[in-house]
Amino acid sequence: MIVLLTDFGVADPYVGQVHLRLAEAAPAVRVVDLFHGLPSFAVQASAYLVDAYCQRLPPRAVVMAVVDPGVGGLRQAIAWRAGGRCYVGPDNGLFEMVARREGVESCQALAVPEHAAPSFHGRDVFAPAAAALARGLALNAQEAPLTRFPDWPDEWARVLFIDHYGNAVTGLKAHPSRHEIEVADRRLRRARTFSEGPRGEPFFYENANGLIEIAAYEASAAGILGLRLADPLRVLG
Amino acid sequence: MIVLLTDFGVADPYVGQVHLRLAEAAPAVRVVDLFHGLPSFAVQASAYLVDAYCQRLPPRAVVMAVVDPGVGGLRQAIAWRAGGRCYVGPDNGLFEMVARREGVESCQALAVPEHAAPSFHGRDVFAPAAAALARGLALNAQEAPLTRFPDWPDEWARVLFIDHYGNAVTGLKAHPSRHEIEVADRRLRRARTFSEGPRGEPFFYENANGLIEIAAYEASAAGILGLRLADPLRVLG
Amino acid sequence: MIVLLTDFGVADPYVGQVHLRLAEAAPAVRVVDLFHGLPSFAVQASAYLVDAYCQRLPPRAVVMAVVDPGVGGLRQAIAWRAGGRCYVGPDNGLFEMVARREGVESCQALAVPEHAAPSFHGRDVFAPAAAALARGLALNAQEAPLTRFPDWPDEWARVLFIDHYGNAVTGLKAHPSRHEIEVADRRLRRARTFSEGPRGEPFFYENANGLIEIAAYEASAAGILGLRLADPLRVLG
Repeated sequence: MIVLLTDFGVADPYVGQVHLRLAEAAPAVRVVDLFHGLPSFAVQASAYLVDAYCQRLPPRAVVMAVVDPGVGGLRQAIAWRAGGRCYVGPDNGLFEMVARREGVESCQALAVPEHAAPSFHGRDVFAPAAAALARGLALNAQEAPLTRFPDWPDEWARVLFIDHYGNAVTGLKAHPSRHEIEVADRRLRRARTFSEGPRGEPFFYENANGLIEIAAYEASAAGILGLRLADPLRVLG
Repeated sequence: MIVLLTDFGVADPYVGQVHLRLAEAAPAVRVVDLFHGLPSFAVQASAYLVDAYCQRLPPRAVVMAVVDPGVGGLRQAIAWRAGGRCYVGPDNGLFEMVARREGVESCQALAVPEHAAPSFHGRDVFAPAAAALARGLALNAQEAPLTRFPDWPDEWARVLFIDHYGNAVTGLKAHPSRHEIEVADRRLRRARTFSEGPRGEPFFYENANGLIEIAAYEASAAGILGLRLADPLRVLG
Repeated sequence: MIVLLTDFGVADPYVGQVHLRLAEAAPAVRVVDLFHGLPSFAVQASAYLVDAYCQRLPPRAVVMAVVDPGVGGLRQAIAWRAGGRCYVGPDNGLFEMVARREGVESCQALAVPEHAAPSFHGRDVFAPAAAALARGLALNAQEAPLTRFPDWPDEWARVLFIDHYGNAVTGLKAHPSRHEIEVADRRLRRARTFSEGPRGEPFFYENANGLIEIAAYEASAAGILGLRLADPLRVLG
């Protein structure tokens, strides 16, 4: 199985071109579009989201993840392994939080073919590599280290993503001991699920991926609170 | 075949997580994303849309439908059968119009596993049940009645959905005898298809699912008329 | 393989209904959603995009393309062949640029079944034809000429599409000799990829489909320049 996480969006022609390439190179392999709404240009924020969404993947899944403002520049294209799975994408920190949790068993730098479009390694470099790995084939690649980002915190106290309901996913883990947060000058208390709160009153809860998420029952928490990507928050207790 | 209708949107990571779960639990079953734009929080409006889009499904299709603001609360999770098909989702009225048309042959309340995320039964309760039904397996469930909503009208004279062209789908059936409607203080006449009207002049027509839909040739009827979700309309003749 | 390019959008229930029809009529055939964001009502602009995205399709692909404001009116529904591939859609110019590049080996006008919805030939006419062609079956159709649009230029010096990053795809080819363009009263120089430019400074580059595309490093070029669909541009040198 190949699992895709990108910032390509779903309205543009980029995911489709990746699917075409995968269908040609690995016709028998299932491809799952896990998430194409990673925040554009925001590699660090995306690193926490990629880690959250990759925690329960099937064994032997091949993950292709792309948030890659430096595509075609100096950063390497890589494929690396941990816990029986492979990860393919840019070596720009996007995999830092997965690597911190899983460890890194091996890593290779991918050769970039001459015909590859400098603006679309997703189609011309990462998809062929993901297809080869999913089929158990060797890569055109040589051993290289995964670049690490030790200064990034284990949790990031920021809004990473706002979904279409207006719920705001953060980079903080929803430890059971956390009962109150502060965001946008408001104190929010914890609830178990949406319908526990009064309609239109923001709260936070442990989302289905283990993160603190800000929501409101039948209303847009982001709208009520004026939240935007990268807004900070703070655990009060 | 498993057919999905939800309000999860396509830009968020929810449909992808459902697909992952289905791929693990029923790898040989085809999954069709029929519609992920059901109106959020609007269960009654969604009930008419689910009915309209489910009228010509293949025999033995398993329908998983989710508009579920009460997820994790008191409402039951159910699986029910009619006309050779199965329907899985929340017992909150979302299936009322399908049940009224098809009847209800049997209904079961699904057990909610302890590990299920209270905010995401789509992934942790409905998808496993849909996968099991598509494979012909028995559910962890017991007989229970489908909750009915007898006060809801057979047709709903409201705007249920506005598509990206600006066409407005309503909950009224396009009986051939209906020739004129009133909406947003305008009288609209019936046409057969878009190009029959003068450019930019709103009209209504029978959409491809049998409902009255308001449109304009090469223009946004919703923009011209200022239509919004839940706006009322009236049949004049 | 059936490859879809439409203006149906991904948030509406139209692509899903096409997938259902294809799954019933050609269950063993892979369907790839290449692009559902072709500009609505804009057949000529879409013709250049369809050509760009169809240049490296697998041999024997069946392309179903739909931008069809005249659906249900006088234009024919067609299926035509060139270069080992089949193309299905409206005979309104949408295939003009593909036909100019590939030639036209044969063309048929599709019969429109009586039950077909006049507003949704994608589901009721084109999908069944695409499914039949992908399975190697004969069509309910007779020989007919493809309508040609000789007045349309080989390249179109306009903005055809703006993606979610704010990059603007144009109808001009990125010949290596082209070094400078003028758009929105600004002169832009050529770069190889995004990270070559200073952050937030618009430039143009050869996109992954051979066209001139206007972009800015980690910023929205369309936002900075105020670009809109159909805006003109000019090659300066």
